[in-house]
Amino acid sequence: MNLSFHDLLKLKWQEKKFVCVGLDSDYDKLPESIKNQPEVEESLKIEAAIYEFNKAIIDATHDLVCAYKINSAFYEAEAQTWEAMLNTFWYIKRTYPEIAVILDAKRADIGNTNNGYVKMAFDTLKADAVTVHPYLGEKAMKPFLDHKDRGIIVLVKTSNEGSDEFQLLKLEGGRRLYEIVAEDVANINKWNYNGNCTVVVGATFPEELKRVREIVGDMTILIPGVGAQGGDLAETLKNGLNSKGEGIIISSSRAIIFASAEGDFAQRAREETEKLDKKIRGLI
Amino acid sequence: MNLSFHDLLKLKWQEKKFVCVGLDSDYDKLPESIKNQPEVEESLKIEAAIYEFNKAIIDATHDLVCAYKINSAFYEAEAQTWEAMLNTFWYIKRTYPEIAVILDAKRADIGNTNNGYVKMAFDTLKADAVTVHPYLGEKAMKPFLDHKDRGIIVLVKTSNEGSDEFQLLKLEGGRRLYEIVAEDVANINKWNYNGNCTVVVGATFPEELKRVREIVGDMTILIPGVGAQGGDLAETLKNGLNSKGEGIIISSSRAIIFASAEGDFAQRAREETEKLDKKIRGLI
Repeated sequence: MNLSFHDLLKLKWQEKKFVCVGLDSDYDKLPESIKNQPEVEESLKIEAAIYEFNKAIIDATHDLVCAYKINSAFYEAEAQTWEAMLNTFWYIKRTYPEIAVILDAKRADIGNTNNGYVKMAFDTLKADAVTVHPYLGEKAMKPFLDHKDRGIIVLVKTSNEGSDEFQLLKLEGGRRLYEIVAEDVANINKWNYNGNCTVVVGATFPEELKRVREIVGDMTILIPGVGAQGGDLAETLKNGLNSKGEGIIISSSRAIIFASAEGDFAQRAREETEKLDKKIRGLI
Repeated sequence: MNLSFHDLLKLKWQEKKFVCVGLDSDYDKLPESIKNQPEVEESLKIEAAIYEFNKAIIDATHDLVCAYKINSAFYEAEAQTWEAMLNTFWYIKRTYPEIAVILDAKRADIGNTNNGYVKMAFDTLKADAVTVHPYLGEKAMKPFLDHKDRGIIVLVKTSNEGSDEFQLLKLEGGRRLYEIVAEDVANINKWNYNGNCTVVVGATFPEELKRVREIVGDMTILIPGVGAQGGDLAETLKNGLNSKGEGIIISSSRAIIFASAEGDFAQRAREETEKLDKKIRGLI
């Protein structure tokens, strides 16, 4: 039996695992040792390096995480990197089927045009969840939302500088745009008619995280920004955890996977993941 | 010398060409005749069918259009369809370098993460322009906006049912979200600091098209929705053309490329493109 995205998460949360490792595996940043595997032919060097890097990180961290997140921007520019992404998804699904894998693709098109993206995410890659933009509205996103067993993770308040430009715009009545987005996404008569929605709020915005938690009830929140971007972990947990003391995915990428640029990268990635995991356990 | 996206468009507008053919070439909808090319080996059937279909449409319409638009959702689910997309981009750039090609990928990630999408769009595919979501704000989109010679086409008021959910939200002061997005994108101190931005407004929303034209001045507007989606052409031109009687890209996809499901599909595509082109000439 295949468990849904939310069922997979719940099992991990029971073990107090909240860390998600983001495999933002930019080839240029990989350790030299993994780029030069003598047995690999030249035309497959890039694909092999990225795949072996990801595999080593996954093998070293799988018992500590609730999910992996793979950002397609780092993979889809070329055929070799695309293959590395595909093989990474399949490796996790084959080897650690109990761990949810999120495709961080930030997609969104109109109506049936989304079918292509749905096919890529759920059939080809076999992702358990995918991130999407809210701007086109719920009706446009039906092909995603109809997949009851998959997580549809909607951008609400993103972690980046400049995310205030539209997300913090004040509406008639005093509320801000991100609040309305959060409200609509959590609404079981709107985006969440299948109970499969999740929202993204950056750890760099603790006040907005608190507000979103008030709005969405116990819904899951994906929280990037605690690592290299500098979000405060204690505040993130205080503001982010739901009434059951769970409902969060704490995502860290660069701070974990690029902790070392040497041959010990996987061991160092484990240490950083463990550190984050322990900090979280100490705070909850 | 490579001309910029906007220079390519201007040359076509001088000839009163405003039609953009959208190559939404869903394999399932292709004519049977093109799916069964006996000389193609089985493992390349899909790739070959889509590429030959696109090539035939392009050859039959190239003298009538100002641009082609390729929506990545129809291509990126599998390796074969991805290759067909790549080869279609390269075919147009090689054979008809005077025609702008838009990658309708609706991308947007945070800061440098966008570098991967920029590389895919501009280096790998060699697109002249790419469509993006506005939600993350200008600062997040710098890697796209920095490409002065490429068009950055921002979703403002989309053609779909349900696009009102967020896009029409009323802000303090009375304006609506899409108006603020249009204003920021057109602002030379914000998104448009390189003068390379364009906005998307669906022909299905004539009032909003009129309003966006007022806001963005002479900036180019990409207008989908006149074909299968039913937007009125006369109103679109009245509301959409800029003060120079140009500045629009009228995009039609299904109504042109699937005009016939038989062996005459390319000829019929030409007839439909010609019909749209003549209608536009009759109205301006």
